Amino acid sequence: MSEKKIQVGISARHVHVTRKDLDILYGEGYQLTVKKDLSQPGQFACNETVDLVTAKGTFKNVRILGPERKATQVEISLTDSMKLGVNPPVRDSGDIAGSPGLELVGPKGSVTLTEGVIVACRHIHMTPADATEFGVKDKEIVQVRFEGERALTFDKVLIRVHEQFKLEMHVDTDEGNAALLKTGSTVEILK
Amino acid sequence: MSEKKIQVGISARHVHVTRKDLDILYGEGYQLTVKKDLSQPGQFACNETVDLVTAKGTFKNVRILGPERKATQVEISLTDSMKLGVNPPVRDSGDIAGSPGLELVGPKGSVTLTEGVIVACRHIHMTPADATEFGVKDKEIVQVRFEGERALTFDKVLIRVHEQFKLEMHVDTDEGNAALLKTGSTVEILK
Repeated sequence: MSEKKIQVGISARHVHVTRKDLDILYGEGYQLTVKKDLSQPGQFACNETVDLVTAKGTFKNVRILGPERKATQVEISLTDSMKLGVNPPVRDSGDIAGSPGLELVGPKGSVTLTEGVIVACRHIHMTPADATEFGVKDKEIVQVRFEGERALTFDKVLIRVHEQFKLEMHVDTDEGNAALLKTGSTVEILK
Repeated sequence: MSEKKIQVGISARHVHVTRKDLDILYGEGYQLTVKKDLSQPGQFACNETVDLVTAKGTFKNVRILGPERKATQVEISLTDSMKLGVNPPVRDSGDIAGSPGLELVGPKGSVTLTEGVIVACRHIHMTPADATEFGVKDKEIVQVRFEGERALTFDKVLIRVHEQFKLEMHVDTDEGNAALLKTGSTVEILK
């Protein structure tokens, strides 16, 4: 097993949008603008935000992450889900079948999603070379250990391997806070 | 090691108050009233609430837990702390020295705390008989395992032994959500 440390990225609530939904939210043909590049190549935080609205609550100014995607997807924490009164499943990104919806409100219009709200499943991005070094495979489920004041070991962490990926573990804010992690903290794969 | 399962209680943000602060918040001589008995004998959720106020944010109607205590203490999650812009330490209940303060606002007055805001350290309440059965001692630090979709193992879980305690593990909402726990879920001590 490699001694290489894996940095953690803590994902706050965010939204991925389709071209079609962006036309409604921000106007026909609107182009997302880059606020900040994210660690995974080609991914970026946008200057654009939308409001998440349900019968129970609203989160204002939730950041859109670009580029556009094939399906609009809202990633929130379980803490968030309680405030919104929705019951999202814990899923890998892109796997939204049967998930609940909510209303997205942008400056030019609003979109009522019938599905797309998920809690992201914790996962580690890595290249094939990283995978060889750690002795793991794409889609393998591993345990990951965090040290520190709130030390813990997460089970059921998904390995995602792609040539374009940068080595990084992604957790949501509940997981980050439960472990007293900061973005940039490092963790270790246990096998 | 006992096979006995330990139920989990998830603590939402709450406040413990002194007699003196209750006089200010709710009026001289005001008596806390019981909304619901808690699992630990003698402890109860009150009908009374206060607002937590900082320069950055407010949480309205945060429940007071009774009975009155020797020091006023505010227990919040790290998620909460970010919204309030305070930086509380992870501490055992009662250990508030050097922690930050905030303003408590009640129906009759407000109190500016100079300290008392903490994130509670996860812990397990048990009787001496339970401790014998589990092979642990008061103040021992153990690992605790949660099964399920977000299975994980918490390190640094404090054992608290007292004749009056009911067997129960307490975590905060971040920890509960990171593990997909519900109040009443059961966990296992690893040694």
